[in-house]
Amino acid sequence: VPLNYLNIASDARKQREKIIQQLFEKRKIPESGFDDIVIETLVTEISQLDSNNFPSKCGVGEREARIACDLVRRRHYGLGHGVGRSGDICENQPKAAGSSILNQLTNILTLDLIKMMGIRSIEKSILLPMATGMSLMLCFLTLKSQRSSEAKYVLWSRIDQKSCFKCITTANLIPVIINPIRNEDELQTNLTEFENQIKILGEDKIVCIVSTTSCFAPRGCDDIEGLAVLAKKHNIPHVINNAYGLQTTFLTHQIEQGIKEGNVDIFVQSTDKNLLVPVGGAIIAGPHKKLIDDIAKHYAGRGSSSQTLDVFMTILSLGRDGYMKLVRDRKENFNYLKERFEILAEKHKENILNTKRNPISIAMTLKNFDENNVSMIGSMLFTRGVSGCRVITTKDDKAIDGYLFQGWGSHVTDLINNTPYITAAASIGITKIDIDAFIDKLDKVLLKVRNNKES
Amino acid sequence: VPLNYLNIASDARKQREKIIQQLFEKRKIPESGFDDIVIETLVTEISQLDSNNFPSKCGVGEREARIACDLVRRRHYGLGHGVGRSGDICENQPKAAGSSILNQLTNILTLDLIKMMGIRSIEKSILLPMATGMSLMLCFLTLKSQRSSEAKYVLWSRIDQKSCFKCITTANLIPVIINPIRNEDELQTNLTEFENQIKILGEDKIVCIVSTTSCFAPRGCDDIEGLAVLAKKHNIPHVINNAYGLQTTFLTHQIEQGIKEGNVDIFVQSTDKNLLVPVGGAIIAGPHKKLIDDIAKHYAGRGSSSQTLDVFMTILSLGRDGYMKLVRDRKENFNYLKERFEILAEKHKENILNTKRNPISIAMTLKNFDENNVSMIGSMLFTRGVSGCRVITTKDDKAIDGYLFQGWGSHVTDLINNTPYITAAASIGITKIDIDAFIDKLDKVLLKVRNNKES
Amino acid sequence: VPLNYLNIASDARKQREKIIQQLFEKRKIPESGFDDIVIETLVTEISQLDSNNFPSKCGVGEREARIACDLVRRRHYGLGHGVGRSGDICENQPKAAGSSILNQLTNILTLDLIKMMGIRSIEKSILLPMATGMSLMLCFLTLKSQRSSEAKYVLWSRIDQKSCFKCITTANLIPVIINPIRNEDELQTNLTEFENQIKILGEDKIVCIVSTTSCFAPRGCDDIEGLAVLAKKHNIPHVINNAYGLQTTFLTHQIEQGIKEGNVDIFVQSTDKNLLVPVGGAIIAGPHKKLIDDIAKHYAGRGSSSQTLDVFMTILSLGRDGYMKLVRDRKENFNYLKERFEILAEKHKENILNTKRNPISIAMTLKNFDENNVSMIGSMLFTRGVSGCRVITTKDDKAIDGYLFQGWGSHVTDLINNTPYITAAASIGITKIDIDAFIDKLDKVLLKVRNNKES
Amino acid sequence: VPLNYLNIASDARKQREKIIQQLFEKRKIPESGFDDIVIETLVTEISQLDSNNFPSKCGVGEREARIACDLVRRRHYGLGHGVGRSGDICENQPKAAGSSILNQLTNILTLDLIKMMGIRSIEKSILLPMATGMSLMLCFLTLKSQRSSEAKYVLWSRIDQKSCFKCITTANLIPVIINPIRNEDELQTNLTEFENQIKILGEDKIVCIVSTTSCFAPRGCDDIEGLAVLAKKHNIPHVINNAYGLQTTFLTHQIEQGIKEGNVDIFVQSTDKNLLVPVGGAIIAGPHKKLIDDIAKHYAGRGSSSQTLDVFMTILSLGRDGYMKLVRDRKENFNYLKERFEILAEKHKENILNTKRNPISIAMTLKNFDENNVSMIGSMLFTRGVSGCRVITTKDDKAIDGYLFQGWGSHVTDLINNTPYITAAASIGITKIDIDAFIDKLDKVLLKVRNNKES
Repeated sequence: VPLNYLNIASDARKQREKIIQQLFEKRKIPESGFDDIVIETLVTEISQLDSNNFPSKCGVGEREARIACDLVRRRHYGLGHGVGRSGDICENQPKAAGSSILNQLTNILTLDLIKMMGIRSIEKSILLPMATGMSLMLCFLTLKSQRSSEAKYVLWSRIDQKSCFKCITTANLIPVIINPIRNEDELQTNLTEFENQIKILGEDKIVCIVSTTSCFAPRGCDDIEGLAVLAKKHNIPHVINNAYGLQTTFLTHQIEQGIKEGNVDIFVQSTDKNLLVPVGGAIIAGPHKKLIDDIAKHYAGRGSSSQTLDVFMTILSLGRDGYMKLVRDRKENFNYLKERFEILAEKHKENILNTKRNPISIAMTLKNFDENNVSMIGSMLFTRGVSGCRVITTKDDKAIDGYLFQGWGSHVTDLINNTPYITAAASIGITKIDIDAFIDKLDKVLLKVRNNKES
Repeated sequence: VPLNYLNIASDARKQREKIIQQLFEKRKIPESGFDDIVIETLVTEISQLDSNNFPSKCGVGEREARIACDLVRRRHYGLGHGVGRSGDICENQPKAAGSSILNQLTNILTLDLIKMMGIRSIEKSILLPMATGMSLMLCFLTLKSQRSSEAKYVLWSRIDQKSCFKCITTANLIPVIINPIRNEDELQTNLTEFENQIKILGEDKIVCIVSTTSCFAPRGCDDIEGLAVLAKKHNIPHVINNAYGLQTTFLTHQIEQGIKEGNVDIFVQSTDKNLLVPVGGAIIAGPHKKLIDDIAKHYAGRGSSSQTLDVFMTILSLGRDGYMKLVRDRKENFNYLKERFEILAEKHKENILNTKRNPISIAMTLKNFDENNVSMIGSMLFTRGVSGCRVITTKDDKAIDGYLFQGWGSHVTDLINNTPYITAAASIGITKIDIDAFIDKLDKVLLKVRNNKES
Repeated sequence: VPLNYLNIASDARKQREKIIQQLFEKRKIPESGFDDIVIETLVTEISQLDSNNFPSKCGVGEREARIACDLVRRRHYGLGHGVGRSGDICENQPKAAGSSILNQLTNILTLDLIKMMGIRSIEKSILLPMATGMSLMLCFLTLKSQRSSEAKYVLWSRIDQKSCFKCITTANLIPVIINPIRNEDELQTNLTEFENQIKILGEDKIVCIVSTTSCFAPRGCDDIEGLAVLAKKHNIPHVINNAYGLQTTFLTHQIEQGIKEGNVDIFVQSTDKNLLVPVGGAIIAGPHKKLIDDIAKHYAGRGSSSQTLDVFMTILSLGRDGYMKLVRDRKENFNYLKERFEILAEKHKENILNTKRNPISIAMTLKNFDENNVSMIGSMLFTRGVSGCRVITTKDDKAIDGYLFQGWGSHVTDLINNTPYITAAASIGITKIDIDAFIDKLDKVLLKVRNNKES
Repeated sequence: VPLNYLNIASDARKQREKIIQQLFEKRKIPESGFDDIVIETLVTEISQLDSNNFPSKCGVGEREARIACDLVRRRHYGLGHGVGRSGDICENQPKAAGSSILNQLTNILTLDLIKMMGIRSIEKSILLPMATGMSLMLCFLTLKSQRSSEAKYVLWSRIDQKSCFKCITTANLIPVIINPIRNEDELQTNLTEFENQIKILGEDKIVCIVSTTSCFAPRGCDDIEGLAVLAKKHNIPHVINNAYGLQTTFLTHQIEQGIKEGNVDIFVQSTDKNLLVPVGGAIIAGPHKKLIDDIAKHYAGRGSSSQTLDVFMTILSLGRDGYMKLVRDRKENFNYLKERFEILAEKHKENILNTKRNPISIAMTLKNFDENNVSMIGSMLFTRGVSGCRVITTKDDKAIDGYLFQGWGSHVTDLINNTPYITAAASIGITKIDIDAFIDKLDKVLLKVRNNKES
């Protein structure tokens, strides 16, 4: 093949190598996303550094990352060793230099992502191969091991999503449920009650305070700064459930303020909800490197590298531009959802609840429907293929692990202001098509239920 | 296209559909493995039942299994919802009928696998999307929540593998380390000391007894039956770490006997070590359905379906025949490793330790080498690409989470019989090529170290 | 799994099945493109109808579509039998009902595509697994076999692209090269000379007339209608090389007019240039079913199904909307290229040649550069990664298979109007980024060459 | 990641790079096959050298290898430019250094393969992206262009496979059909008639002699050496249809002898039948480099690189060892088929025809069945999923392109020895399972037909 043809091809090759080299040198999310071939080549290169992929391998251990099924090998690009070692999910594996590099690099990229989204005061971020529920639980176990032997309570600003609560009881700790207070439409953090409980129980008996940013309206983002100040005052760790809060700068700003003004020890976010990967991972981050390292060391044994790989490939595929576009689009779509929701509310003589501190979820009253009809609205929407909206009667009770939640779903036990309502969220990746279809279907369902009622 | 051509093609199609139908009807591992195309078609069919893959989807929730990166979507066949719901890793998801079916079916197939390997008394088996360490920890947390509030001790027959121990401390429980006793070459369960500790601590203070089947020689499989009887007598739960024990009927037989004669509540096995999939999952099984269900319910939030998918595809790909062939081949290779090891031992005037209750791992003394040389042997083997063998000086000490292990690696604190040794394992998937390469390299390394010493 | 979850999934499944069913029933390009999973599932379903993929196959022939390499099998979705049988590239194969269906369906879809692009008078279209050069050659061989035994000449309106000419000599026929005439800037069909040659050689001695639609400026599309009328008058077949003409309605309109007013027997188009698939296939179409069938029957032996598969998947992936968007975008980009080119020409005191009958390619004079510099411009652009532009000195001579072309590249032997020029094309799939980069690089190269010259 | 971990990984990487480097340096088929990951990485590396995959590409031509559908891009690893240029299917493309390398390397590997199989006197081999029929046709067109203008006959030793004959008529040449003569059971080359026809027609009128090696019993391999000597004597080119003859050294030996003793100009083999890839390519080889180059130059335009890629990947995947194992296995399976066939023949009082010069295909008489029953046997086998066997009544007539073949299927017009028979072939890739199933089904079909007849 003539040399001048090859020279040009060689230039292109160098360009591609430079892109990858920069990734390893700068350790930042690239400005623009990589194309699929570059990503796959890079992942393959990395996986070839693991011993199970060595041409002349010689394994006489009990775990040699042998993969029986070709389809499985392909879908993992030959990665088999998982991440971490027995004592630390961030430790490097002698047998698996590639997986170790993948893990480190991905942790660094998630750190960069969090900074990019506005939490500049972060020091360390790690990806755990468990979803948010179990990841929060591991945080609690770690904090518990570092607190006084008598510490057993977790002060929790109520949010009616089951795994946010179960992660406390699974850790065999005792949740102290603090109902939010209503401020006009919005449910806000009951700071007074938090302070009250600290006094009643005693600082030393408390493992940590748990707050939540992203949540279903009309609950707003917790008063992160207020709780951070309180936590600092009483020297209590403060864990933030930031499940899908990384996708909006409003919520990341609360966390950044919390770190600056008080105690924020750990904030936890879901990889699937913020990075559009399959369910299964969480990012544990915080302003104190040592604590995050301690959590990593508290993880027993190694874990799947599948979530790490998903996040790695997704971040490289999107690049900085791609992710920020998703963030901007989401914000626009939130506004669009709100507009369309308001028009619908007016038509049906309902209200959109005024929830300024919730940038993702919107609630519309269903005050003109009785309890039965409200439930029927929910199931009719489900049958019509609408997923993700929640219909709240405010009259359901639910017991979880022995704790009773009155008005389950409404985040508060409130026997007076118990108007039923429906919520919908504009989260990252949503499209106008989703919104239009939702509003359209909801309109039809409301009409149908009203007509049935009236006839 | 002529009808007679199509008729024959149609027959073939029906044959293939029948294979899949039988899987759903019989809920057994198929006799012969499926070919790749059938597996991929089946997985795609299943994933198409999840709402994120519906042609006209309409998602307004915070988690809609949107997948940003095409490569990620492809490698998960479009599966994004994970398995389980907030309260139970085995619960079905309304949005994800496909993932729910995948999860149920895989759990049923693992149950069938365990029965096939000889544990007939099993009632329930579930796959957790966490490796053995964290899965054991979840078992302990679950048991702890069901024991008296004062229970905090875990009686543990020592095995020097870090995550087997850390899973206790991670659960914030207190390990009671019971050194095995030496019987000729083999290290065996110290039943007397177990009984002794139960008396000292009190039955109610003990969360559970933990035994291990698969382990590094010269430690043998614990006396499962003896511990089961003891556990039953004192009404203490008994958890078996069967990490890579599913691959040999010798070890599964111990468990089956334990169930029949006493208490075996949970036995835990690694998916990667027994099923040759990437690291990340564990199978939790037991003879009492309710307890296994309780563990599933103790899991906070949902989890990755990636491990489930790997196991599902691997079991279908292997079939009953394929897995049993792997099991038989392993046994043959174990014998081959032993033969070659014995010849090598004779040549170097070392001994193969006599460990009848260890069907996987073999240990050869390094009595003719001093401590430095023994370490050097280890690192020389590593440099030569040998992975998985362990060189034990018997003189190393190690502290884990505040607990000191003297003679780390040797499973016992024994200041007298502390001959250094090397172990190698013939686990599932090993080949004669591995064994030949290992023996050859070890031979050369021993010669080299001896020559250096002698000169 | 609860029934109501499954019902919704089942609805989605039916929707997807309906889409596929409609494809088979309507035999039209779907309005909207299918997503990847649907396409892959469909292709897999089809390939499973071939005997080599039957679960219980029994092959004792010399060709059983066994595939040795897994990667090869995967990339062909298990399709191995190719298309056609010994006597006819469109014949169905008893062993391969699936490949036969794929072939038929793809031919029907290409027919629909051609109609959609405006050639309504078409009766039959087939995809050949050879690129345009060899496909044209097969058309000539077929026509030759049907003409008088003395027929040996092909009247060809000159276009300086080698394979357009070689397809005649490869068929062992004698090309009669008819130079176009210049009309202001544009090179147009020399109808008079065509008529003249028919008289000189005799109608019976002529196998066919060959015209070209898509070409490099300043050559315009041939006078298809004029040639069609002439061909009809003399009862000579007329073959149109429509290599990349399917992408623009201006060129398809010429063909439609030709069919209506005179003889157009065959028009041939490249799959790669019009459908954005890898090189290797051509679509042979025409208004008389029998002739196209004859060409299919003239194809000796069977052929690759790879090109058919590419076209099938691409058409389904794009859908009607997707393809028409590509067509519209191309037209816009052509106008954009022209605008930017005109500004550049003005800057460098060059001219854009006025070529109204060329909707794809644009030429700019390089009158201010001498022959050496013109060549240098070409190689400098190549070195800078510009591909596809042509720099024409008009002074090169080239002999192909014994025929001399003076002024090679300029489509005409013209010793007077021989200004050098450069061409660029806006073909389907081009982006504004391509155009901007090209104009920018060309500008820099021209400046550099001028500066060197001036200094 | 610690340096010593990386060192070992780096060693493995170097080992892999060395394997690839050796491929480029030695230009020989590697001893052992490459694993899938190495092959895919190599192909990706190569495809990245094509301009359509450059990170900053700038295409303004009519053909820029843009690929619209992602699935198509993936299955071609981004290769889009095809192979060859307008004037020569082996020419390098400026825009596609990668595809050019792929093409050259594959041609070199096929040369090595042919040598390995015993044809040492070969000088050049090229892969054409057309199956054997069209490839033979191109050979004839090329030879025709080099022979006297009066040459128009092709002397062809009859074999009843349609495309072997059609390739002559498609080239618009006149076939002279020379029936083989029967020697006991076997049909052998009628050398006398060949010589006779040469005298009648005149040497100069003959384009070439065509012989066939691989064929259906009872036809044997042509007398290649005899024809080669004859061709040399009369100075006529000699083309060998070696369709599936590369897989057996018996047939390649005939060719090698032919080259040594006389004229063998071109031998053509199918890629699918000899290399187990999908249909679509042929290997054109010969002892004179120039002639093979001429054929390459006679190919008009460029061609698909898909067949080249398949062959490249397959050869690398098999390696020398893998291919030779296939060859050995085939020979064993041929003997097995023969044994089982003989037992069956005895049972049904039929004979196995004695055909020593056919190492692949075996024929058994059906003398105890009448014409109707023989046809029924054929269709019953087809319905039972047997593919590839041929049932010959010897009484069918067939006209192809105006030439009548009496006794179609039996390779000879022979009104006396016209016993019906059935053939089966043991070609490369066949398994004992195929053979057992075939014999079993044939047995049952024969019994059923006999019973019907008898009752």
